[in-house]
Amino acid sequence: MNDKPSIDAVNLKRLAKQLNLSVSTVSRALRDSYEISQETKQKVLSLANQLNYQPNPYASSLRKQKSKTIAVVVPEIANNFFSLAINGIGSVAQEKGYHVLIYLTHEDLKQESSIVRHLQSGRVDGVLISVSSQTNDISHLVELRKKGLPIVFFDRVCESIETAKITTDDYESGFKATTHLIEQGCRRIAYLLISKNLSIGIKRMQGYLDALRKYNIEADESLIVHGSNDVQENYKLVEKLLRRPDRPQGIFASVEKLAISAYHVCRDLSLNIPADVKIISFSNLETASLLNPSLTTITQPAYDIGREAAAILFKALDKNKIDIPEEMIVLKSKLMVRESTG
Amino acid sequence: MNDKPSIDAVNLKRLAKQLNLSVSTVSRALRDSYEISQETKQKVLSLANQLNYQPNPYASSLRKQKSKTIAVVVPEIANNFFSLAINGIGSVAQEKGYHVLIYLTHEDLKQESSIVRHLQSGRVDGVLISVSSQTNDISHLVELRKKGLPIVFFDRVCESIETAKITTDDYESGFKATTHLIEQGCRRIAYLLISKNLSIGIKRMQGYLDALRKYNIEADESLIVHGSNDVQENYKLVEKLLRRPDRPQGIFASVEKLAISAYHVCRDLSLNIPADVKIISFSNLETASLLNPSLTTITQPAYDIGREAAAILFKALDKNKIDIPEEMIVLKSKLMVRESTG
Repeated sequence: MNDKPSIDAVNLKRLAKQLNLSVSTVSRALRDSYEISQETKQKVLSLANQLNYQPNPYASSLRKQKSKTIAVVVPEIANNFFSLAINGIGSVAQEKGYHVLIYLTHEDLKQESSIVRHLQSGRVDGVLISVSSQTNDISHLVELRKKGLPIVFFDRVCESIETAKITTDDYESGFKATTHLIEQGCRRIAYLLISKNLSIGIKRMQGYLDALRKYNIEADESLIVHGSNDVQENYKLVEKLLRRPDRPQGIFASVEKLAISAYHVCRDLSLNIPADVKIISFSNLETASLLNPSLTTITQPAYDIGREAAAILFKALDKNKIDIPEEMIVLKSKLMVRESTG
Repeated sequence: MNDKPSIDAVNLKRLAKQLNLSVSTVSRALRDSYEISQETKQKVLSLANQLNYQPNPYASSLRKQKSKTIAVVVPEIANNFFSLAINGIGSVAQEKGYHVLIYLTHEDLKQESSIVRHLQSGRVDGVLISVSSQTNDISHLVELRKKGLPIVFFDRVCESIETAKITTDDYESGFKATTHLIEQGCRRIAYLLISKNLSIGIKRMQGYLDALRKYNIEADESLIVHGSNDVQENYKLVEKLLRRPDRPQGIFASVEKLAISAYHVCRDLSLNIPADVKIISFSNLETASLLNPSLTTITQPAYDIGREAAAILFKALDKNKIDIPEEMIVLKSKLMVRESTG
């Protein structure tokens, strides 16, 4: 690996053309070669700076030996949102003749860091990632970008990293879900989320809080419950919530697995859904309409989110671009009203 | 890459010991080095042949530069069996400090072949695979083994490839599921499977056929329905089945998604489960007990199957072994009786 900075072919050509120099002269000037005069070097560097060309040590190696492989890094797969999104990504990758490597972080920051560092070795051409619920430190992601790997976030994004981000309308959906529960007669409404670190959990919660405010319902902190990746722990948290004398009349789960925990608790406590407690959840559960009772969901366009994220990444790969411009793409979720909020 | 054949460390040692030579002499003799006499070379080669040692060009490179990565190749992930098995594999890999790459074949032989060829480039140390339902040609798998990558099959195995295979008791479970339907009063029982190529589908069907025979029920070929990976196609097949005047009284689905199709069809045709038709399915569906009605399942120990497969692969990797001995490990499934066969 050459440690000297180089810039990519297109940029070298443009520089050479504008300066009326050969590509190899420009390239050597940028590498500070002894064969090139100080005067020429000065001209080349000055134009390179002016045009804001980023010398990138990985660009040429990336171009020459593409792995024809992209990585998808997700927190878990026992979740219909991610399996659908991965299928969407796969459909685009197949059209492009790329392999897709799937890595699971198991909602663990350490594993996510380890995987992301592993990816720096050049085994993939680009990365699609949905961060773990524990990801409060993003240095591994910043590092990955510095190494010249294009990266696109989907669903669980890192707002502070400049690139494309594909999400759903989390705030609006949170607002809509909560409004639906209020319109169905709920005043005490619990909000279940799995992490304070996730932008999407916070946005959905903001929608929940604003909907309460709109209907003059005072927010009650004790009704905001933080679950985890542990099924039994989630069960206990929801059980505690539903054993309260001032039990909530409605539950809004920001992730599918917390809604499933709520169903199990209701069954075990002989609480009737929706008579005793109404439930709505963000979910792509294939069996949502077959549950007893069928589950009202906010359904994300998971497959399309995956396709869109992959399309943006491949657009960059096709052009040998490493920096993907900051862009927030929002695909709308749908409220599917079923029996659980009836 | 050295083109000369080499053999792995353990075998070199054994050869050296039996011949009373140093390991480096044996190694050089096998590489046909000019430093070694013809006589010694003859002795070494003769014993190597006698003990049936396979010179393997990849062994030394594998040993020297481990990727600390294993591949898991599965047909799909929107299936709770595979997501649980992958979690089991991941738990072992984490203990061992390995990364897990997941590849999806989408039930497609071409994609499976392409992935398996991709893996030959040495990016992983070993492979865990559950073959696609289309896999009737196994040359890509035979090739992979020849390249010196250890491979372990789980769930959907290739019987003709000599290595370890982890499955559940497919035949017994098929027999048990069918017997359960018969004991619940069914005589016309349909069997739904997704492929004739899969050993597990065939074994489960054999159990089904033998159970019918035991109860003197004549098998009816028209009640054996081959579904696919296409949800709408599956729906139509099951719909056709359930619109027959001599509609089956029981359905035994060998995979989860066909049971879900059957639920949807029953709802749309206003057929009551279990009064009009009883349903049992191989399934690890997390929501099986929450369905309306709750689904009777044959539940595989998916997580343990994943752990067991990974443990066998890592045992080989720890010892730098490439050939994993033929072994069939069978973990038992459980019949979970619920409302759908009540």
